[in-house]
Amino acid sequence: MSTSVSFDPVPPLRQLQTPCLLLDQARFERNVRRMRTHLAQLGVSFRPHLKTAKSIEVARRVMDSAAGPGTVSTLREAEYFAANGVRDLIYAVGIVPEKLDPLGAIRSTHGADMAVILDSVEQAEALSAWSAAHGQAVPAFIEIDSDGHRSGVAPEDAELLIAIGRILDGGAAELRGVLTHAGGSYALHDPADLRAAADAERDAAVTCARVLRAAGLPCPAVSVGSTPTATFADDLGGVTEVRAGVFMFGDLVQAGIGSCAEEDIALSVLATVIGHQSAKGWLIVDAGWMALSRDRGTGRQSVDQGYGLVCDETGRAYPDLVVLDANQEHGIVGVRPGSGAALPPLPLGARVRILPNHACATAAQFGRYEVMDGTAVVDRWPRINGW
Amino acid sequence: MSTSVSFDPVPPLRQLQTPCLLLDQARFERNVRRMRTHLAQLGVSFRPHLKTAKSIEVARRVMDSAAGPGTVSTLREAEYFAANGVRDLIYAVGIVPEKLDPLGAIRSTHGADMAVILDSVEQAEALSAWSAAHGQAVPAFIEIDSDGHRSGVAPEDAELLIAIGRILDGGAAELRGVLTHAGGSYALHDPADLRAAADAERDAAVTCARVLRAAGLPCPAVSVGSTPTATFADDLGGVTEVRAGVFMFGDLVQAGIGSCAEEDIALSVLATVIGHQSAKGWLIVDAGWMALSRDRGTGRQSVDQGYGLVCDETGRAYPDLVVLDANQEHGIVGVRPGSGAALPPLPLGARVRILPNHACATAAQFGRYEVMDGTAVVDRWPRINGW
Repeated sequence: MSTSVSFDPVPPLRQLQTPCLLLDQARFERNVRRMRTHLAQLGVSFRPHLKTAKSIEVARRVMDSAAGPGTVSTLREAEYFAANGVRDLIYAVGIVPEKLDPLGAIRSTHGADMAVILDSVEQAEALSAWSAAHGQAVPAFIEIDSDGHRSGVAPEDAELLIAIGRILDGGAAELRGVLTHAGGSYALHDPADLRAAADAERDAAVTCARVLRAAGLPCPAVSVGSTPTATFADDLGGVTEVRAGVFMFGDLVQAGIGSCAEEDIALSVLATVIGHQSAKGWLIVDAGWMALSRDRGTGRQSVDQGYGLVCDETGRAYPDLVVLDANQEHGIVGVRPGSGAALPPLPLGARVRILPNHACATAAQFGRYEVMDGTAVVDRWPRINGW
Repeated sequence: MSTSVSFDPVPPLRQLQTPCLLLDQARFERNVRRMRTHLAQLGVSFRPHLKTAKSIEVARRVMDSAAGPGTVSTLREAEYFAANGVRDLIYAVGIVPEKLDPLGAIRSTHGADMAVILDSVEQAEALSAWSAAHGQAVPAFIEIDSDGHRSGVAPEDAELLIAIGRILDGGAAELRGVLTHAGGSYALHDPADLRAAADAERDAAVTCARVLRAAGLPCPAVSVGSTPTATFADDLGGVTEVRAGVFMFGDLVQAGIGSCAEEDIALSVLATVIGHQSAKGWLIVDAGWMALSRDRGTGRQSVDQGYGLVCDETGRAYPDLVVLDANQEHGIVGVRPGSGAALPPLPLGARVRILPNHACATAAQFGRYEVMDGTAVVDRWPRINGW
């Protein structure tokens, strides 16, 4: 709130008004180093997904350079990152004709190489027509449906793939390559299954690239990625670049999958104990679903973390203490059902950190990150939201 | 996105970039008239909860006057509404000592009568001490737990109630009254059960007011409310004011409870069809959980609406067409499982309106309302988010 302008730009932890969003810088940077090292060893480029953080301060610490490359999920992100110097972006949500004018404006205003994705003849024709009309060869990736979870051309549908490729390559647009996202990997947790998902994602993309090339079409880029498959991949032969986003912060869903450890989770919501319901074994905190998000992703995993796992002010998790339920601005904290853990005796005004189920969803509830070095607030990084 | 500055301030519907948030003004105003008339007939004051809309434009159309009264759930809302002329507010989340300085600053900067709520001796003592130290008699409501769903003093705990009352009345703070919120009513759907919940909410508050008065303590205000109980109440004898928020927009959860009809829902997310997965019977739209929120409140009701019910561009619902699943910026639209409905043949670029599960959660994903008169955009009302 703006009454906090009476604070220094970087206030001590105790002076932060709750709820607010903490980013543990050491964990974040370790997560980034781990992924970058892993992908370098696999010999592929890295195109981080910037939708998780929506912050240029974060992006600059994750990308190869201040100019990118990066991936975005909205035109608002595209414009923000382009305005902040990122020059190589993929807008990785299926393009529609109505979005070509604003996308073209971002490309020309900022001189950004922004590619789009599509999975139909209709989209390819519209893109080609727009490119011809505006004298801008917009690069496009053909989206491949590697695991049936959402969008894309089925990898076995060579006819459609080639038809789209011919329209892009033969007209005024540009065929940049193929792209897939193994979103189905979020449902896994066994390392062997995750490696198999990474292999399947790679194979779908590489096979489609071969089909295009065999038809005489160019396919310079073969883009794959999700945090679980990027983490578990051990052979990305034929792939040129990997996209992933949530790895940079980690979260409880990724910990449940095995893509990170609980100790890697860099994001938490700082909250204050505002009440006790001792007869019920509850603490009430001032972080409800508005702060934590409504994401209940761990509800489908073997360890259900409620609306989040509760740690002390320094970030050490209490045994089995979770947010059992949430209203808009209230979190109901208690011991995980079935565990024998005791409710810690936290007085009114005590501060806790709550690890989120899903970093992308929780971060989106806030306008900035309070950047932490241990228990010291060392910086504030703004982020964008909306469209 | 800011490239839309090339549009008129109020663009035609076709020029809105999707996803965006539509507010049907006629439905909104009808919902407000209905609630105001109902509460006037019951002889109680109305203190609408402003957390649903977080918009002064909305608030001014719901409150008795531009000065209030109103209810807020965060200090950010308190400051925003106070800065916009609202002078009579309750911050209806348990107060902690750390929040008294910013709260006091809002009170004195804007000359607002802002009351707090609390349910413990410790909070009452802290408030009394702060009031004495700052020469500000902060008014407080004792929160009553009328249905066991969250916070408050148990209505049968007269000893605690009186102990808190004595501290507030005997010290430098002010005992304003009692307040309760029957949040458990959200789990109901039978009108008789809802009327019983409204009676129980009233009885808990009125009983506690009597206990305080019998102990020689003042209790001028008896504040109750939730959208379901406010809607179904038929006797509020002893109650002085009602709080409710979501009624103004309505949503699918409230329709499932019976607090509104589907035709009363004033809020929707405008989205664009960005892809087809015909073999699976899916349409892909550009409103995922970031736009719709992760709220799955209808998942616990007899009719599960997925992530939202899909209507055409004019607001007419397609039979049994729902958002089956959602990723960050993708909604997967299909026919409700088990229904015999057909998938409407919506082409790429077609626009749909998606009715939300929970108005408070969905609205919070946006920075403004596109105000609609039928299919014409007639205004834009900004809203706040965050803390």
